[in-house]
Amino acid sequence: MKPLLKEFRRNPLLWLLALVPVVLVAAKVAPAAHTLLFVLSVLAIVPLAALLSHATESVAEKTGDAVGGLLNATLGNLTELVIAMAALHAGQYTLVKASVAGAIVTNSLFMLGASFLLGGLKYHVQEYNRAGARLHAGLLLLATIALVSPSAIARTDLAAGAVMTQKLSLGLAVLLIVGYGLGLLFSLKTHREIFAGAEQAQAEAGEPAWPIGLALGTLAVVTLLVALVSEIFVESVQEAAKIFGMSPAFVGFVVVALVGGAAEMTVALSAARKNRLDLSVGIALGSASQIALFVGPVLVLLSYLIGPTPMDLQFWPGAVVMVFVSTLVAAFITSGGRSAWFIGALLILIYAVFAMTLYVLPPQSG
Amino acid sequence: MKPLLKEFRRNPLLWLLALVPVVLVAAKVAPAAHTLLFVLSVLAIVPLAALLSHATESVAEKTGDAVGGLLNATLGNLTELVIAMAALHAGQYTLVKASVAGAIVTNSLFMLGASFLLGGLKYHVQEYNRAGARLHAGLLLLATIALVSPSAIARTDLAAGAVMTQKLSLGLAVLLIVGYGLGLLFSLKTHREIFAGAEQAQAEAGEPAWPIGLALGTLAVVTLLVALVSEIFVESVQEAAKIFGMSPAFVGFVVVALVGGAAEMTVALSAARKNRLDLSVGIALGSASQIALFVGPVLVLLSYLIGPTPMDLQFWPGAVVMVFVSTLVAAFITSGGRSAWFIGALLILIYAVFAMTLYVLPPQSG
Amino acid sequence: MKPLLKEFRRNPLLWLLALVPVVLVAAKVAPAAHTLLFVLSVLAIVPLAALLSHATESVAEKTGDAVGGLLNATLGNLTELVIAMAALHAGQYTLVKASVAGAIVTNSLFMLGASFLLGGLKYHVQEYNRAGARLHAGLLLLATIALVSPSAIARTDLAAGAVMTQKLSLGLAVLLIVGYGLGLLFSLKTHREIFAGAEQAQAEAGEPAWPIGLALGTLAVVTLLVALVSEIFVESVQEAAKIFGMSPAFVGFVVVALVGGAAEMTVALSAARKNRLDLSVGIALGSASQIALFVGPVLVLLSYLIGPTPMDLQFWPGAVVMVFVSTLVAAFITSGGRSAWFIGALLILIYAVFAMTLYVLPPQSG
Repeated sequence: MKPLLKEFRRNPLLWLLALVPVVLVAAKVAPAAHTLLFVLSVLAIVPLAALLSHATESVAEKTGDAVGGLLNATLGNLTELVIAMAALHAGQYTLVKASVAGAIVTNSLFMLGASFLLGGLKYHVQEYNRAGARLHAGLLLLATIALVSPSAIARTDLAAGAVMTQKLSLGLAVLLIVGYGLGLLFSLKTHREIFAGAEQAQAEAGEPAWPIGLALGTLAVVTLLVALVSEIFVESVQEAAKIFGMSPAFVGFVVVALVGGAAEMTVALSAARKNRLDLSVGIALGSASQIALFVGPVLVLLSYLIGPTPMDLQFWPGAVVMVFVSTLVAAFITSGGRSAWFIGALLILIYAVFAMTLYVLPPQSG
Repeated sequence: MKPLLKEFRRNPLLWLLALVPVVLVAAKVAPAAHTLLFVLSVLAIVPLAALLSHATESVAEKTGDAVGGLLNATLGNLTELVIAMAALHAGQYTLVKASVAGAIVTNSLFMLGASFLLGGLKYHVQEYNRAGARLHAGLLLLATIALVSPSAIARTDLAAGAVMTQKLSLGLAVLLIVGYGLGLLFSLKTHREIFAGAEQAQAEAGEPAWPIGLALGTLAVVTLLVALVSEIFVESVQEAAKIFGMSPAFVGFVVVALVGGAAEMTVALSAARKNRLDLSVGIALGSASQIALFVGPVLVLLSYLIGPTPMDLQFWPGAVVMVFVSTLVAAFITSGGRSAWFIGALLILIYAVFAMTLYVLPPQSG
Repeated sequence: MKPLLKEFRRNPLLWLLALVPVVLVAAKVAPAAHTLLFVLSVLAIVPLAALLSHATESVAEKTGDAVGGLLNATLGNLTELVIAMAALHAGQYTLVKASVAGAIVTNSLFMLGASFLLGGLKYHVQEYNRAGARLHAGLLLLATIALVSPSAIARTDLAAGAVMTQKLSLGLAVLLIVGYGLGLLFSLKTHREIFAGAEQAQAEAGEPAWPIGLALGTLAVVTLLVALVSEIFVESVQEAAKIFGMSPAFVGFVVVALVGGAAEMTVALSAARKNRLDLSVGIALGSASQIALFVGPVLVLLSYLIGPTPMDLQFWPGAVVMVFVSTLVAAFITSGGRSAWFIGALLILIYAVFAMTLYVLPPQSG
């Protein structure tokens, strides 16, 4: 347990873990205090996500390159996946879809933008591995197209029944997971040298790895805790949103995405401050494409097992536009391989435009 | 006739030509056997397209650079044009438009993707002339915008009468053909050195040229045969589609495009296996832009002569999205000048997404 | 006054200034002669815009780098701003929005295209500062997304009341002006070396600067004259459009944009003929992004002061598509850093496609 205690001293964020039992108890004694439960669960998820992220990396490091890479790739967005599964189980498909779309937008605009901005405030111009960034951006762009195109097209056909959309979504989910598997084969096996720089930087930049037993135990316990807290979060979020005057779309797109991605964001920003933009860009775009190619499709498949009804991949048209524009911008911005603070500021401004628009949306359109 | 016989021995595909008389007879004796006629006509068009392609190249080679380039550029998609004309004559405008949009999508996603994939399975990383590819992709992007923008815009205005849309389509068709002419002037005359590499590779990669008499004779006879078989194909395709459970959109987009482009596809793929990606990219993107800038507009003009009523350039919104996304992806992917197998796999996956979506579409929305 | 007279001899366009008093008198004696007033006011605005542009540059040059750059950036589109203010005051919000969208499209397609075409007719291939162009194009792309995204999204939600859209537009206007301010900080202060080449070229290419008193006086008087003539222009344009058979969308998009940008266009084209494409690209894309990030938002804010009711940022969907496509094309085209005549020709053809489409639009859809 020593490394765990050391981690606690090193990372003051982890003190927030004290809120995990608080929120679990509060949910029992005051199930109607939605605002309180919402705030507590958000604050409790952030340190859990950080622990989860560290545990995953430790396991990955111990298990060797290929399996480790696979683990990192699969569990890297475990927090997002667990939160979305809680929402899926509750039948809140609007929230699930908004959180998937929002995670793509938040990672490719806000996380990338904040990295460029914070890095740029310290360094005049930063360069990063253009080939790697291009490939990452390409994957993301392609993944997004695959994810949003059916929405754009299905939408135009109002006569199509739900059964048809459902069948299509199932087929597309399988197709996307195949694409994700091929992507892993490509980046971990056949062409790993293109991504090598970023991976090595990641290993160096990371905190010291935990022993495997501790890591696996933490992984299991923390995943369970995230699941429990997520359930409370999902139950309270709708009511809390009404009180805060937030639309459901805003909650899913912005709040859930920022909460779920807090851990990765910390790593990406700290890497940017150390002039390791390769790593920041890799985390931001890699995480976005993982959600588009893996988390989203897996949720569709899981909806057959744990959801009240099957979920399809049909998004609200505004979300489709935002996701498509975000990935287009990320692809364009990163194709040059250079950055400065203003690029980051503009990415954040675009994110603010989207957030502002979602904030004023009336409840029914989320 | 010797070179023709030699060609038959070299290319086993040509044995399918035996089906040409079979389908012509079958159409007489069993005009209601739609499925049979559909399958036979598809199988008969493939070798005819290969012959047509070889004859065009032979004529082009004999007539010298400028005229030859012009011929290649004009007759390069003769099969697509003849099939579309048969559909035009039958008043099947939905099929005509789907085949135009589908040929752009199929060339810029499937043909390009298959070239990258097959080439990438043999070579670790392949490089190609970036400047040429950029220019090709630029032409294609611009052509597509010109082709789809009016659809996007005209669609928003429901009050506009058909007369207005028709007038606009006529004007745009003329504009696009002017653009096509300027493009030929640019690539064959004023800036031919940019494209020179790919052209030379094409000449080398090609089969030995036929004597001019044989080539011209083949061109005339085969065009006539394609026209006859296309008529049977167009008549049978709707009924056959119903039996196979395919939507008309799927037939136009996927089946017609693959059948019409089979000959070019063979050349592009074999070039990719020989590490001549310049040629593959040139064929895929060049063919797509030719269809957008030349075949489409010519069909609009021809509809005044051979169609029951004038045809406009207003596409189904889903087709507009697919065409726009395809060319955007092709432009982004080729701007780097490098490829690996995964890029090809993803292009094909996107194509599969589109094909899957079209497959489940209900009949009325094609 | 000597430099002013010298300017008159140098620039025959300025003789059109004689039409300024003519149009002012004509508006008094024949307020119903809409066609005459329209033609006269268009012809009178062109030389006024040229004078305004020269006066602004002279003041900018005298006041030193930072303030000068700020002035140039703020007053560079003064003519467009004044015309739009006249339309704003008359409550013609459709015309205001069309002129904002049209100025972005006209600058990024027509002005850029004409520069490439005219430059390319003289030089085989022209190169320009790729980093600067990329940054300019990036700014423009980002600005446009910020401007059009809310339209695309707001549009999908028919239930949203006008109040909500209005609140959002106000917030976005402030956000965009913040982005514009940060952009100035970036290009004039923290990273000015990236833009240095184009600025220096601009200073050299420009006409000799006027004394500060003359410049300031001209600025004040000419702005007043533009305002007076614009009022006549705005009053007459609707009736004249009907007579010429032009839709209001065409008038705002094409006529107002070309009239308002005539002065900058002259400078950009002459720079292209001198093989100074850095300057041409900078003017075309810089002007477009200034209108998107500054003129548009300022008009929203001004509508609270001088308009009959507040104006929002919700554009007609066709305009959104055109603006988005234009900036996408400009970003793609300029990312290579090379140009030839055909690139220019195609940009102009796309502009012609848009203009043709707008021309045939029925009046109510503008």
